[in-house]
Order: sequence, then C-alpha cells, then structure tokens
Amino acid sequence: MKEGGRTLSELAALVGAELRGDSTATITGVAALGQAGPDQIGFYASTRYREQLATTRAGAVLLKQEHADACPVNALVVDDPYHAYARIACQLHPRDRAAPGVHPTAVVAADAVLADGVSVGPQAVVESGARIGPGSEIGPGCVVGRDVRLGENCWLAAGVRLYPGCSVGDNAILHSGVVIGADGFGFAPGPEGWHKVPQLGSVRIGNDVEIGANSTLDRGALADTVIGDGVKIDNLVHIAHNVRVGAHTVIAGCTVIAGSTTIGSWCVIGGQSAITGHIEITDGVTISGMTGVTKNLDKKGVYASPLPAQPVRQWRKNTVRFTQLEDLFQRLKALEKALTALRAHPPEQS
Amino acid sequence: MKEGGRTLSELAALVGAELRGDSTATITGVAALGQAGPDQIGFYASTRYREQLATTRAGAVLLKQEHADACPVNALVVDDPYHAYARIACQLHPRDRAAPGVHPTAVVAADAVLADGVSVGPQAVVESGARIGPGSEIGPGCVVGRDVRLGENCWLAAGVRLYPGCSVGDNAILHSGVVIGADGFGFAPGPEGWHKVPQLGSVRIGNDVEIGANSTLDRGALADTVIGDGVKIDNLVHIAHNVRVGAHTVIAGCTVIAGSTTIGSWCVIGGQSAITGHIEITDGVTISGMTGVTKNLDKKGVYASPLPAQPVRQWRKNTVRFTQLEDLFQRLKALEKALTALRAHPPEQS
Amino acid sequence: MKEGGRTLSELAALVGAELRGDSTATITGVAALGQAGPDQIGFYASTRYREQLATTRAGAVLLKQEHADACPVNALVVDDPYHAYARIACQLHPRDRAAPGVHPTAVVAADAVLADGVSVGPQAVVESGARIGPGSEIGPGCVVGRDVRLGENCWLAAGVRLYPGCSVGDNAILHSGVVIGADGFGFAPGPEGWHKVPQLGSVRIGNDVEIGANSTLDRGALADTVIGDGVKIDNLVHIAHNVRVGAHTVIAGCTVIAGSTTIGSWCVIGGQSAITGHIEITDGVTISGMTGVTKNLDKKGVYASPLPAQPVRQWRKNTVRFTQLEDLFQRLKALEKALTALRAHPPEQS
Repeated sequence: MKEGGRTLSELAALVGAELRGDSTATITGVAALGQAGPDQIGFYASTRYREQLATTRAGAVLLKQEHADACPVNALVVDDPYHAYARIACQLHPRDRAAPGVHPTAVVAADAVLADGVSVGPQAVVESGARIGPGSEIGPGCVVGRDVRLGENCWLAAGVRLYPGCSVGDNAILHSGVVIGADGFGFAPGPEGWHKVPQLGSVRIGNDVEIGANSTLDRGALADTVIGDGVKIDNLVHIAHNVRVGAHTVIAGCTVIAGSTTIGSWCVIGGQSAITGHIEITDGVTISGMTGVTKNLDKKGVYASPLPAQPVRQWRKNTVRFTQLEDLFQRLKALEKALTALRAHPPEQS
Repeated sequence: MKEGGRTLSELAALVGAELRGDSTATITGVAALGQAGPDQIGFYASTRYREQLATTRAGAVLLKQEHADACPVNALVVDDPYHAYARIACQLHPRDRAAPGVHPTAVVAADAVLADGVSVGPQAVVESGARIGPGSEIGPGCVVGRDVRLGENCWLAAGVRLYPGCSVGDNAILHSGVVIGADGFGFAPGPEGWHKVPQLGSVRIGNDVEIGANSTLDRGALADTVIGDGVKIDNLVHIAHNVRVGAHTVIAGCTVIAGSTTIGSWCVIGGQSAITGHIEITDGVTISGMTGVTKNLDKKGVYASPLPAQPVRQWRKNTVRFTQLEDLFQRLKALEKALTALRAHPPEQS
Repeated sequence: MKEGGRTLSELAALVGAELRGDSTATITGVAALGQAGPDQIGFYASTRYREQLATTRAGAVLLKQEHADACPVNALVVDDPYHAYARIACQLHPRDRAAPGVHPTAVVAADAVLADGVSVGPQAVVESGARIGPGSEIGPGCVVGRDVRLGENCWLAAGVRLYPGCSVGDNAILHSGVVIGADGFGFAPGPEGWHKVPQLGSVRIGNDVEIGANSTLDRGALADTVIGDGVKIDNLVHIAHNVRVGAHTVIAGCTVIAGSTTIGSWCVIGGQSAITGHIEITDGVTISGMTGVTKNLDKKGVYASPLPAQPVRQWRKNTVRFTQLEDLFQRLKALEKALTALRAHPPEQS
C-alpha cells in the first residue's frame, strides 16, 4: 500500500492497542525497525533488537507495555506485538487479486459452478461438476478436477492441481505446484510384481489452510486423508494416504508423513522430519527438525533425534563407534562386574 | 462402480477363489470390513481385525482357508486376500478415463504420432516426433517433449513433464508434477565457477511403472537413467542421473538416490532414505525409512540407520555424548587395561 | 552434433590444449572412453580407467601431461581434463533452442517487454510488467508473474513458475516445476490459530544459476531471498525465506535450508542435508549428504553427521544404546572413580 494508508488510531483499533503518541499519523506500510521510515510501522518483540528500537525512525512501533517507555516514536502497546504486526501487515499489504471472471484461454466445464467474484486465470482448467466458492481465485495453469469442492476466498497460485473429488474449505492458500489427491502409494505384492490397490478415498481440507509450493497430499485408500482447520504446511511436504492432521498443526518443509498416521492439533513439526505410518501423535507435540518418529507419541512435549554436524574426521570415528555401541555396553557391564568382584575379593599381592 | 457390478462367481473366477455361499450375490464395490454393506466385498488378512470379521455386514469377504469358518457371510477363499482384493478393486472401480481425442486447446505437433484411442487433455503440449501408444491418456497441462516414446495404456495425470527423448513403457501411471528427463546435476569446477556438463543421456522407463506426484527422474550424463519393469516410486522422490533401478523395486516418498548408483530388483526402500552415488545395492534389499546408505550392500537383508525421536532434554545430552564416542571408547579401553593390571599387580594396602 | 563438428585444432584452441596427433581430425561429439568412436572425444581423469584409455578407439582424448604418453590415439593435453571436456561438450552438443517468437496459445500481457530473440512457448503466461532479456526462452506452460525481471540467454524449461516481482540474472537454467517466490512460511501464533505474516520481500537470483526440477525458493518476509552468481541447485531443494546463498555454492538434491540462514560462497552441500534457520555458514564449507547443521559453521572444512546403514538387528540394539548414552557416560565416570579409589585404598583381603 503506497497511497492512503491508515491512521494510527485506526490501526490501534484494529489490533486493540493502547496508542501512545500522535493518533493522526498516517501509516502506509510495515518495515523492519532498522529500515522503517516515518510512514511505516515496525514491531519490537525481543530485547536483542534494543539498539534498533532506540534509533528507529519508524512512524510507530508495536511493542509490549514493558518496553513502551524505551520507544522514541509513536507506540502501539499490545500483548503480542508479532501477532498484531501480522494483522496490520495483512491490512496494509493485501494480496493483489486477479480481476473476477474467466480468462478466455481457460477451459471451464459447462456444469462447473463458479460463485460470484470467482477468477479463473489463463490456461486454467476447471472440470465437470467442480464448485468454486465466492471470491476464490484459480491461478494460471491450475487444474481443478471433476467434482472438486473449493470454499470461498481461496487462492490457488499458478499451477496447482486438485484431483477429482477433493474438497478444500474457505480461505485456503495453495502455492504453485501443490498436488492434492494423487493416488496413495498402495500396492499388493504378488509373484509377478506389485498390483495397484485403487485409492478410492479423497482428500478433505478444512478452512484457513495454507500449503507450500510443490507439496503433495495423497488421497485415501478407502477412507479420506483429512487436514484440519488452520493447518499450515510448508514447501515440498509429502502427506500420504489416510493421514489425519489436527487443527492448527504446522508442518515445516521437506517433511514426510507416512500412511494412516494421525497427528493431533496444535503440533509443530520441524523441517525434514519423517513420521512413520500407522502411529498416533497426540495434541501439542513439538518435533524438532530432521527428527524421525517411529512410535506413538502420547505425551505433549518436545521430541528430537538428529545428530549435529561434526568435522568429518571426528564424525567418521564416532559413527564407527556408534555401530559398536552394543558391544561397548557389554564391555562396560563386564567391567562393572569385575570391579565389584575385585572389591569383594581382591587378588593376593604378588 | 454403482450399477451392474459382478456376481460372486464372476469375482471368484477372476481371482481363482473357492466360493463359499451365494454365488449369485451381486457385488458393486469394495469397502473396509467394518463399513461394508451387502453389495460390497471386503478382505480379512490379519487377526487384528477378528472383531470386524465377526460382525461384518459385507456381501462377501476375501480370506484365507484357515479363517473361512469364522466368516459370517459369503466368503471367497484365496491364498493372498490382499492381492485378490487389489485385483477385484481394480475391476469394480476402474479409473474414469478421458474420452479419446485431442482437446481443442491442446497443442500437438504435426509430426507427433498418436495411436488409436489416445486422449490429449486441455492445455497439453505434445512436441515434434513424439509417439503415444494406443489408449494412453495425456492429462491437462502435460508437456510431452520432442521424440518422447510413450507406450500403450499409460496415464499421465495433469501437469506431467517429459523432456525430449525420454521413453516410457506400457501401462505407466505418472502423477501430477512428475518431471522426467531434466538435466542431471553435473558441473565441472573451475577457477571462475562451475561449468555445466551437458547431460546427453536420456531416461528409459520400463512397463507397469507408477511414479508419484512431483517426483523427478533426471536424464543421464552420457548413458541413460534406467527404471525397470514394475517399479513403483512414491511422491517427491529424486532419482539422479545414470541411476539404474531393477524391476519391481519400490521406493517410498522423499527418498533421494544419488548419481550412478545401481539398485537391484525387488528392493524395498523406505521413505526419506538417502542413497549415495556410485554404489550398488543387490537384489532383495530392504532399507528402512530415513536410512542413509553410503556403501555397497552386497547381501540381501534389512538395513536401517535412523535414530528414534527422544524427549528433547534426553536427546540433547545423548547427542553431546555421541560427539564424544571415540573418547568414550578410549576411556573404556584404558579402564579395561587398568583393571587387568590391577588384578595382576594389586597395590599395597595403605 | 552429427554434421560438421570441429577439427581437433579448433577444439585445442577452445580449451587451450597442447595437441598431440592429427590436428585435422574432425570430432562431432563426446563419449565415454570405452564407447567413443573415431569421430568422438573422451576424457581421462582417473587411473581407475587406465584400461579404457589403453584400448580406446576415440578420435581424441583429453588428459593431463603425465598421462599423455599412455594415450594410443590423438590427445589434447590440459591441466583439467574434466573441465575441458565440459566446455567441448557444450560446444559440440548445444541445447536445441525453440525458435524465437510467441506461440499463438501463449498469453503475454500487452505491457510485458520481450527483448530480441525471446521465445515464449505454447500455453505459457507472461504477466503485466514482466521484462525478458534477449535470447531467453520461456518453455511451454511457464508462468512469469507480474514485474518479473529475467536476464538474457535464460532457459525456463516447461512448467516453471515465477511469482510476481522476482528477478533472475543472465544465463539462468530453471528446470521444470521450479517455483520461485512463493510465500515464505511465516505465521504468528494466536489463541485462535496461526495468523499469516505477509511475505513482502522478493527473490533475487544472480547470473549463471541453474536450479533443478521441482525445487522451490521462497520470497523473503521483509528483505529478499538472495542467490549469488554461479550457484547450482539440484532437484527438490527447498530454500526458505530470507536465505542468502553465496556465489558458486552448489546444493545437492532434497536439501532444505531454513529461513534467514546465510551460506557463504564456494560451499558444497550434499544431498538431503538440512540446515537450520538463522545461522551462518562461512565460505568454502563442505557438508556431506544427509547432514544436519544446527549451529554456525565458522571454519572452512568438511562436516558430516549421518549414521551409516546397518543390518537391522544390529541397528536396533545400537539405537537403544544411543538413547542410554548419557547414562553410559555416567557409569563410565563412576567406574573410573572407583578404580582410582581402589588403587589408592585397596580393600583388605578376605
């Protein structure tokens, strides 16, 4: 937003802030404290940035009560500066929306139903029976399969693919290259090879879900793959068939969740983690990046498994030792036993 | 399949089953034992589901001889219920196929050769010299490069890309976003930077191969990248240049196979595994998920390397200790030596 | 290249080689030493291939001074045979280029600026304000977003997506399915869910960059994501928001680099590595495949962390022991103490 902007009092009202300073100041955008100019607002959430706060030229700063006195410019005092920043940034920098209407190069089936204000971009395809909710935007080159249900106010960036029969709730953001509803990886072994097991379920995605570029969510084998409300999924994540992800869980990039696993709500899953199939992870679990989960996690808490990078020579020795760990334990046990025996029955002196 | 269906005797004949019960019963679909109604067939393969078998309302159940007496409804007795289920499910739930013909928005080169019954979807591109076998379906937005050979009865879902010169056998299923034949990752270092090494090989894919969404198979540097018959590859898998994968090997999601590695036939590779370059893995090897393979595996068997997730405090301590493992071994050795010495020459009592 | 070719003296001049043999011999292509015929050139860089050199039927071989005497055919003597091979291979096997011009099915905004010799393929989309440099090729189905800047002589293979406002330098190669500029993964937690943090930065990519199939580079939150000159990125790599990658760094497949991390120049990052957010890696660092980096790496050198695959029984025991490592250290310490005590004060003999 370059023109117009909002007065500080409007922004204070938006996020329920206490305003200290000039309520008529006009703010047109957000910026980092160090870069912000007089028509921009920044936020201050960590004392690590004390210096930037002291010298900021921002038009206003979002911060907590306890830091308000240190603010050299207008302040909006809130409980959670980063959350308030997110809300204000969305107001001041709304996404550019494509104009409603169907681009002449798009291919929309005669019996697809587009609600008011829907935009279908160039080269996009909307197949038979699909229903797109009000205000949703289908980007260039997207393919919306037969009988897909898409809620209102969704944004499919360029090149998203929804297989037939999948459903997505309201306010979804699906980034480029996302694939929803490809066949789950199901094959029955036989003497002549692996026989395909048809994947007859679907994918059901709740409201307010965002999915990062090139992530894939497979359709269920018999039941559906289910993603709860408010789930956020990063890039290049693979979610296998019949997985269920609870509301407000976030999953960072390059993570894989194997088939039929159930993940609770409000979990945080670090990048490049791998969660095995057919397990359950309870609500509120945090999993560090690069962690392998092979068993149910029944208790809230933080879990991890990755080894830290070491200089290669040290690593080489230690990993060899790792493969001898069982042996090491047995030797330790033998030593403990020998020492106990030695204490009880010391050898005669020679 | 909702209408029509098959009689139980037809299904018994299809899978070579012994039929117990009403051979004229009509089955229209498959379902899980617990959900199946009288016109559906389920399967019973594990005693874990004994309860569901006892109370099922399915029209028929596929099961082994030893469980037939416990079946309260019609039974099809087979050696491998899951495999028989897969075959029956494919019969009762065939994939919806696009009608043959070239969509008016598709761009097909004048000298591309489309066999009988080929379907080319909206916004697809088939370049010069490509040859598509009978009954194959090119989904919306696919790009089939110059001189590509595609066998019969293949299905390219929406948005598959085949680079020039690649070949794919019969009955292939390539899911959305699959990329076949991008340049392998080959660069020669020099003082001014990395110089591209042209990737002059191709990708050759056998018959009956399925490849999951957004997986990538790079073309060879000089020789070809080769995928055997019946190979099944999951989503987001990366197969580098010059890799060879033997027949009927399955590779789960997010796995990476580095350049010039050869993998045998009938291997099973778990999700998010990493296999280094220039090694050989023999036939019949199973690799657990999240496993790193850095050396040849010459013996059939199961291999693994991932660490299990631990509560984060415990993990933090243990990983620090991991980086001290070599030291720990040295200390253990010293202790063993000291104890031996002590036994031989006990100190005088003070 | 089948016709024409180059004389050996032309090739010698191209790479600054000393020519031994027939300077008028014509070379039309490159090949492996073992397969090369009299009109092809190969290279010899490792004594592992001594046998192939001795028996080669190649028209010429690129090799070092010290091996020239062992060469049975024409030789081009250079300091770095592989680098010279790369340059010659690029000359003899140039990429097939699409003819300049805009395909009639492409959609190019009226105010997009296409320089001389630009090719826009079928079904591609170039949005408003985009500027494409001379000789660049936009492949079939690509989407070039609003105000994107693309340098000269770039190649976007089929199905590349550039979000609005990103910039790419000269000579870029972006493979199919690459996504540049999707929103970074930024959300502020609140009691009702995660609130989107608008991603207002961009992605700036230098000159001579190659990015592999289906890799994703997210736009910055406030600052930009920046990729230096000469960087080479393999397939299925995820680079998060605000990451900075220095010149001539190479990143192998399936690696993830988390947000706001800075990587130096001339680094080599192995496949399926994971680099955590908000850290710095200095110039010239090599990271082995499947390595997790969780802290700054301030010193040049090679780092690693993966465990090697073991037979599953051995692995099972060792990983259990891994979770007891801290306990093992404590027991070892206790033993050392006890032994010291025992030496000082041996028990009385019973």
